[in-house]
Amino acid sequence: MKKVSEPTIGRLSLYLRLLLDLSDAGVSTVSSEDLATRSGTTAAQVRKDLSLFGTFGKRGLGYSVNELVTRLRSILGLERRWSVALVGAGRIGAALFGYENFRRQGFYIEAVFDSDPAKVGQSWSGLVVESDDRMEAVLSERSIEIAVVAVPVRAAQAVVDRLVASGVRGILNFAPTQLEVPEDVVVKTVDMALEMEGLSYALTRLNGASGAA
Amino acid sequence: MKKVSEPTIGRLSLYLRLLLDLSDAGVSTVSSEDLATRSGTTAAQVRKDLSLFGTFGKRGLGYSVNELVTRLRSILGLERRWSVALVGAGRIGAALFGYENFRRQGFYIEAVFDSDPAKVGQSWSGLVVESDDRMEAVLSERSIEIAVVAVPVRAAQAVVDRLVASGVRGILNFAPTQLEVPEDVVVKTVDMALEMEGLSYALTRLNGASGAA
Repeated sequence: MKKVSEPTIGRLSLYLRLLLDLSDAGVSTVSSEDLATRSGTTAAQVRKDLSLFGTFGKRGLGYSVNELVTRLRSILGLERRWSVALVGAGRIGAALFGYENFRRQGFYIEAVFDSDPAKVGQSWSGLVVESDDRMEAVLSERSIEIAVVAVPVRAAQAVVDRLVASGVRGILNFAPTQLEVPEDVVVKTVDMALEMEGLSYALTRLNGASGAA
Repeated sequence: MKKVSEPTIGRLSLYLRLLLDLSDAGVSTVSSEDLATRSGTTAAQVRKDLSLFGTFGKRGLGYSVNELVTRLRSILGLERRWSVALVGAGRIGAALFGYENFRRQGFYIEAVFDSDPAKVGQSWSGLVVESDDRMEAVLSERSIEIAVVAVPVRAAQAVVDRLVASGVRGILNFAPTQLEVPEDVVVKTVDMALEMEGLSYALTRLNGASGAA
């Protein structure tokens, strides 16, 4: 199979979200034009993205919403349940713990760790916050595959090294730093300030400032 | 000036972050190779990204860290202070309010709104949470240009319409929904579940599952 770019995967996730909404609304077929409008892209882009994974839809009839949902869930690895650990029970950790769309898509936070004795032992919706001393034992007991890292920058690499050594293969990182991991581990860093800078760049251009050399 | 892609802008932000770290560490020059290694890309990509904005660096001598910081801050619209409003004082709002890198890059949250009477009037680091009834008045008084939207999906479009009508031109959206805005308004949606699906996709591939049709 061809290598698929990150923006393509992002669009597939977005199509899936839109299709789930259509399915909830009782809609059974959708055209590439309609999907394109809803996702802010072109019909040609939609067809190209979906064609990467085989033949979908019937010419002139559009796509079956339910069939496309099933195929996209398969492509994105969402046909199964993923066991997730949250490392860092601070403000960002708390916000992520309550994020409903994780569960909706099959990502279940089944362990929470913190190094602060005041937080260890707290019950978060029935899940006990564990001391990070217990990380290796708990990750293994609960067969955790993905970790969300919401610790300060200075602690992030050490935490990630321990996660990787315990068999975690996917990391969603909220510490604004580059992490080093082996090739068979996938890291995605979410950096809110970086998104904000995309806004300031665009606004500066829109306002007609030149900025270019 | 050429149109610059979102991934390029993301890399420029990342280079700036790495350069600020180098500057803090007292480093005065950096090569495109070094910058590439630190940012997980190639030296050719670094040179290509920077060349979009004019001539930087001297062949064989690398880039002056401080000069590059100045130029990147100018390109990204970070030479100034941005006044930001936060709409939604829930868990995600609270996490974003405490996010230090916003201030470090010049984004100052100067208004917080919520519709919940229990939250209105609370003091967040000295800033009073305002009722969303007061949104138009406060946005105007405080010359807000960027808003962070952290409200439930069902409320998001109505909030955004009011923000846009009050002159807000940039929106960082945390509600997992597509928002409609006029052409001169920039929206960036941060969707944590979407990032998570990028992980499950990659892990499913790594594990050798086919998934393709």
